[in-house]
Amino acid sequence: MKAWVFTKTHEPLQLKEVADPQPSPGTVIVDVKATGLCHTDVTILDDPGWMDLVNAPVILGHECSGVISAIGTDVEDYQVGDRVGVCPVDPDTKVSIGGGIDGAYATKIKIPATELIKLPENVSFVQGAAATDAGMTSHHAIFAVGQAQKGMKVGIIGLGGLGEFGANMAVAEGCEVLIADPKPAAQAIAKKLGITKIYQDVIEMKPEKPDLIVDFAGFGTTTTNAIKAVKDEGTIVLVGLGKLQAEIDTSELITRRLKLLGNNGGNNQDIAAVYRYFNEDKLHPTLSTINFDEIDQGLDRLRHGQVSGRLIAVLDQ
Amino acid sequence: MKAWVFTKTHEPLQLKEVADPQPSPGTVIVDVKATGLCHTDVTILDDPGWMDLVNAPVILGHECSGVISAIGTDVEDYQVGDRVGVCPVDPDTKVSIGGGIDGAYATKIKIPATELIKLPENVSFVQGAAATDAGMTSHHAIFAVGQAQKGMKVGIIGLGGLGEFGANMAVAEGCEVLIADPKPAAQAIAKKLGITKIYQDVIEMKPEKPDLIVDFAGFGTTTTNAIKAVKDEGTIVLVGLGKLQAEIDTSELITRRLKLLGNNGGNNQDIAAVYRYFNEDKLHPTLSTINFDEIDQGLDRLRHGQVSGRLIAVLDQ
Repeated sequence: MKAWVFTKTHEPLQLKEVADPQPSPGTVIVDVKATGLCHTDVTILDDPGWMDLVNAPVILGHECSGVISAIGTDVEDYQVGDRVGVCPVDPDTKVSIGGGIDGAYATKIKIPATELIKLPENVSFVQGAAATDAGMTSHHAIFAVGQAQKGMKVGIIGLGGLGEFGANMAVAEGCEVLIADPKPAAQAIAKKLGITKIYQDVIEMKPEKPDLIVDFAGFGTTTTNAIKAVKDEGTIVLVGLGKLQAEIDTSELITRRLKLLGNNGGNNQDIAAVYRYFNEDKLHPTLSTINFDEIDQGLDRLRHGQVSGRLIAVLDQ
Repeated sequence: MKAWVFTKTHEPLQLKEVADPQPSPGTVIVDVKATGLCHTDVTILDDPGWMDLVNAPVILGHECSGVISAIGTDVEDYQVGDRVGVCPVDPDTKVSIGGGIDGAYATKIKIPATELIKLPENVSFVQGAAATDAGMTSHHAIFAVGQAQKGMKVGIIGLGGLGEFGANMAVAEGCEVLIADPKPAAQAIAKKLGITKIYQDVIEMKPEKPDLIVDFAGFGTTTTNAIKAVKDEGTIVLVGLGKLQAEIDTSELITRRLKLLGNNGGNNQDIAAVYRYFNEDKLHPTLSTINFDEIDQGLDRLRHGQVSGRLIAVLDQ
């Protein structure tokens, strides 16, 4: 099969012919139909710190959907021909595809059946891929960790890939959504979602007393100000790693009994929930596509901030 | 009746003869038997910022127990002669005694019946007073917010008044308790509680992977290091306001999915729980007593760090 292989920091990804994976007990082979490009892949290529975190040489890519083409023993509930999405993290071992083990920048991927989610009829492969990381992570942050419910005021900081998914799902769920993002393009997306409370900085949300604020930016000051803006006994969920430190006002946390909750990733249930929004035509994130052979160029566009929304490579196989 | 009245920042408390309070519907009069001295009272006396937070002139004191001497209409469940403790905060209005309304540095206090907790037979008035603030707050932080349970590893930062209550109750509950406090006197108290894992700094707990760390000190660096020391998906509860800012590592919070929860105060259920520990002879915090007439001198000893454990004024009436 064909696969984009990472060997070393600052070395370009290489498109190689490698041996097809074979199913082992409890696993399936998925013929990849769509595979999403993620900023994490750019940092793996550029930041030497990642060499300790990945098992190079390794096929990158951790956001995919496809069709099952072979099944190992001990696999129930799935058969050849099933359309599926793939959770990027093994729920048992916590190993990630496209880093810990071979990933989805390949025509085939071998995956434990426990990481599969069936793709509903009305969900495309492109949607099915984007839901597995950007969708899953934002869903987990807002609903599983942040406990957002209909009628709640939910502030969202940063309307990038994850923030857009999250804002759209929160609107669909009947939350009142407030956005903080200074970028005109992001503000235009917010308006398209029917959101009217759009701010430059999260601190401007304070008079609105949001129940929950999810920080998809994580630029230090965003977290500092989210703590000031949220209502008494409110919750702030941290997702974005724009900066690794934040100066926080502990007296606000204590006297107003706030919750500051860190989150990364999610699970199969989150992906299944995102698929339901897609299947019911309630979720319309910005998605654009390239060909499988252009993944290296696509990552370079990501590196230089030239991608709006999520970029997905498609495979015509 | 006699009462210690606060009028203005930097003015000494004045022991005055004031009118006896009369019961109104839903309230009772408690003849105060024991009334605890709290650092908050020192800051009310010394820090002009508090003038906006209290209704001066006002009788201070928010940690008391006594005997009901009169009952208003619409009060069920209580009668004259009942031994009771008093929750410092009205559960409905959130108004605090000894600040928002007249408090317990007085021979009598008028209080809504909803703030009363019956004193079990084996609990003294001195214990009953100390349980209502130091006991309540530490119980709420460790058990209600921190969700400590038997068998969990619970790290406690700062073995002052609240920390000592909390450590003792966590030990009684069957938690494995670890202490971070550089003071020799505090370390001696920890040893007396049977605790063997005693550290200068919370960062030294890291190899132990505590499930929960409660920061009763709140010196900024204590919170910073608690975030590094707690286990993956662990919880840090902030209580102490030693410093009002902390520089935190948001990447630890996010990648390790930590919870940072602020807490102050508690409720009647917490006080009732603390009374059960006292009643079963499982709780032995450091308590010392003075006479009611010495409250101003007692607060001065608190101001100068000359008090170990909780200082309680007793009334022989």
